[in-house]
Amino acid sequence: MARLSNSTLVVIGTGLIGSSLAKAARLGNVFQSVHAINRSSETCAEVLALEVADQATTYAELDSVIGSLKAGDLVVIAVPVRAYREIFERLKPLLPDGVVLTDVGSSKCSVIKSAEQVWGRVPAFFVPGHPIAGSEKTGVNAVNPALFDGRRCILTPEQETDSDALSPVISLWESVGSEVDTMDAQDHDLVLAATSHLPHALAFATVDALLTLEQKNEVFRYAAGGFRDFTRIAASDPVMWRDIFLSNRDALLAQLENFEAHLAELKLAISSSDPERTSAILERSQAARRHYAENNGKS
Amino acid sequence: MARLSNSTLVVIGTGLIGSSLAKAARLGNVFQSVHAINRSSETCAEVLALEVADQATTYAELDSVIGSLKAGDLVVIAVPVRAYREIFERLKPLLPDGVVLTDVGSSKCSVIKSAEQVWGRVPAFFVPGHPIAGSEKTGVNAVNPALFDGRRCILTPEQETDSDALSPVISLWESVGSEVDTMDAQDHDLVLAATSHLPHALAFATVDALLTLEQKNEVFRYAAGGFRDFTRIAASDPVMWRDIFLSNRDALLAQLENFEAHLAELKLAISSSDPERTSAILERSQAARRHYAENNGKS
Repeated sequence: MARLSNSTLVVIGTGLIGSSLAKAARLGNVFQSVHAINRSSETCAEVLALEVADQATTYAELDSVIGSLKAGDLVVIAVPVRAYREIFERLKPLLPDGVVLTDVGSSKCSVIKSAEQVWGRVPAFFVPGHPIAGSEKTGVNAVNPALFDGRRCILTPEQETDSDALSPVISLWESVGSEVDTMDAQDHDLVLAATSHLPHALAFATVDALLTLEQKNEVFRYAAGGFRDFTRIAASDPVMWRDIFLSNRDALLAQLENFEAHLAELKLAISSSDPERTSAILERSQAARRHYAENNGKS
Repeated sequence: MARLSNSTLVVIGTGLIGSSLAKAARLGNVFQSVHAINRSSETCAEVLALEVADQATTYAELDSVIGSLKAGDLVVIAVPVRAYREIFERLKPLLPDGVVLTDVGSSKCSVIKSAEQVWGRVPAFFVPGHPIAGSEKTGVNAVNPALFDGRRCILTPEQETDSDALSPVISLWESVGSEVDTMDAQDHDLVLAATSHLPHALAFATVDALLTLEQKNEVFRYAAGGFRDFTRIAASDPVMWRDIFLSNRDALLAQLENFEAHLAELKLAISSSDPERTSAILERSQAARRHYAENNGKS
């Protein structure tokens, strides 16, 4: 494990993920100091009141905060992915040698492309990352330092990535309880499109569909536990999810089309009142979902 | 409230709903005695071991159990809806005068149609019902006497239904903690198709779609909380859900088509990389889902 105890952690963006990471690192005394950067002085006050970071400043002070870093310090970008380009542009002239840059964005190919556009090629000091953790809750008030404990974090280093940059990022995530895996950015985007972006798109579309029903008041009044669980993720931050959907567009569209084909198959079985075909789909799906639950120790 | 304390409750079928209702009524001393009927003597032994009912017998003894009932006793059908026709046929020559018949099936028009086919018209002593409660867990071992506490139960009496039959069924559900509403069977079927049958169909289709991916092992390995909640209902009993889908076919197909239209709209917004259109859909959906959560006191 890389030693981080003499280093500074700068977290840019204090939404759920950024603030939870900062606070977890702070509580674990992982770094010498934790610095949070966000848009407003109101949020800075919340960051300090919630003891998310040792220091909190707005973007107005980004230049001096980043400029004063030293080799071995870590900068984590935790803003919506469509704001990366602008952050990269600002960081490019500021980052001192040896400072490691990483991020928590939910799509990785688009992030790597943005970095290439700004730096000409992926910088050796940049380690794209994505903790597989989240909640429909948003903002610094949802801070949860246990958010990453026992969860996976995927890093997608490119060929250009320096192993000296990879090592402290692995240490960071392990220090907050995560299990770190590395994979290709493309594989990451496909897996996340299937397991996270697809369900979110379907949950948003489901609630949207119910809203147009004449009987929508009755519909929401009688919605029970199954509906509640199924649509919980539709309460997620729409700006963040718009960014994720658009930045992982191609992988998501492929998953949506695969889903539509399978839904059409189920619909055909139902519309033709075919108990065998309907059963066959439900049985293999149920078996897979139960197998998944057993292997993950949670229903 | 109708007085039930001198009456017998017979529950036919001891899945999650039947056994939970029997046990809740038994623990509340609502009836003089609670009798469960199910398919196998093994299940009878489980019913007695779990103290679900005072007595448990198999269908072989249905004739004598039903034949010995008296006016004011209650029979609840709690088997998958596609088995109703056969149960109705067996009950028809057996039910003594004044015995009230009700059920817990998730679709009501098809149940009413089955009753009409067997009796020629809906019998005055039959009160179609549906508790809005459930779980992906199945069978008598999932028994949960608190399952109906604080939940709604919808009754869909027909014009032919005797008010003397309705009253004890309302008392039954109130005695286990439910709030009872009555509505048209058609309205019930539409509301349930939207809030329960549609999400279940989508969850089954989602898991089914992921199963065909080449990367399915990675997909299930990295599936996190959002996926878990979204697909939990895909672990539900496939036979029960096949029956629900087929018995509420037309209402479900209408909801699936409405959903598909809304999904197509979201897909178009994403594929055309249109942030405004994508945001608009996610924002109205998120607002509705949060409004729902606030009004229901649960996320």
